[in-house]
Amino acid sequence: MKKHGAAKKRQVIPGYACKARIWIENSGETFLGVGRVVLLERIREYGSISAAARSMQMSYKHAWDLIDSMNRQAKTPLVATSKGGKGGGGARLTEAGEQATRHFAELQKKLAAFLARQSKNLPW
Amino acid sequence: MKKHGAAKKRQVIPGYACKARIWIENSGETFLGVGRVVLLERIREYGSISAAARSMQMSYKHAWDLIDSMNRQAKTPLVATSKGGKGGGGARLTEAGEQATRHFAELQKKLAAFLARQSKNLPW
Repeated sequence: MKKHGAAKKRQVIPGYACKARIWIENSGETFLGVGRVVLLERIREYGSISAAARSMQMSYKHAWDLIDSMNRQAKTPLVATSKGGKGGGGARLTEAGEQATRHFAELQKKLAAFLARQSKNLPW
Repeated sequence: MKKHGAAKKRQVIPGYACKARIWIENSGETFLGVGRVVLLERIREYGSISAAARSMQMSYKHAWDLIDSMNRQAKTPLVATSKGGKGGGGARLTEAGEQATRHFAELQKKLAAFLARQSKNLPW
């Protein structure tokens, strides 16, 4: 199994640069953030919540709480689960889950462009 | 003395909204962030590192480490200190410190406008 945690390697840019972390709230509660979206992508990759959680060094309970939070808030659930025998059944992204990961990736791309523009205008 | 910590009251917006935290790095090391800029503003307000730190429930040592980090990284120091007798001398923002707080406030304003635009385009 791949072992590569949730965090990307931090990119060190020589000189001054603007950085930011973005997330989406729903009436003050976190709906989507970088960690949640990586979890969704791992569920797509592994087809299982426990394998996805393990690949991020995250407890099953924490992964489940995050999925429950996303599913409760979204109009239609982002992750669908099926009961199974050994291994605890499968999990997959729904179309709403696919849309959520796509939209968040788009947001991060726009944020990166914003930060690149602002980094050019720093007075240092 | 005012007691109101570093953090602003979190604003809860009904429905879905994009949120972000922004900071400025210098070759991978944090140079300016929300907490550091509040510290600079409090030094301007109180004329003293210890009073500024106390107003943020921050230890003197932590405040000093942050100031040292900013002063080392900036071309000219952001905070100037003078030795004193009782109370440990004064501190004030230099012109470079004033510029840093102004520029960071400008960045936060631009980020808020970016987030407001993105919040309108969310599919939820």
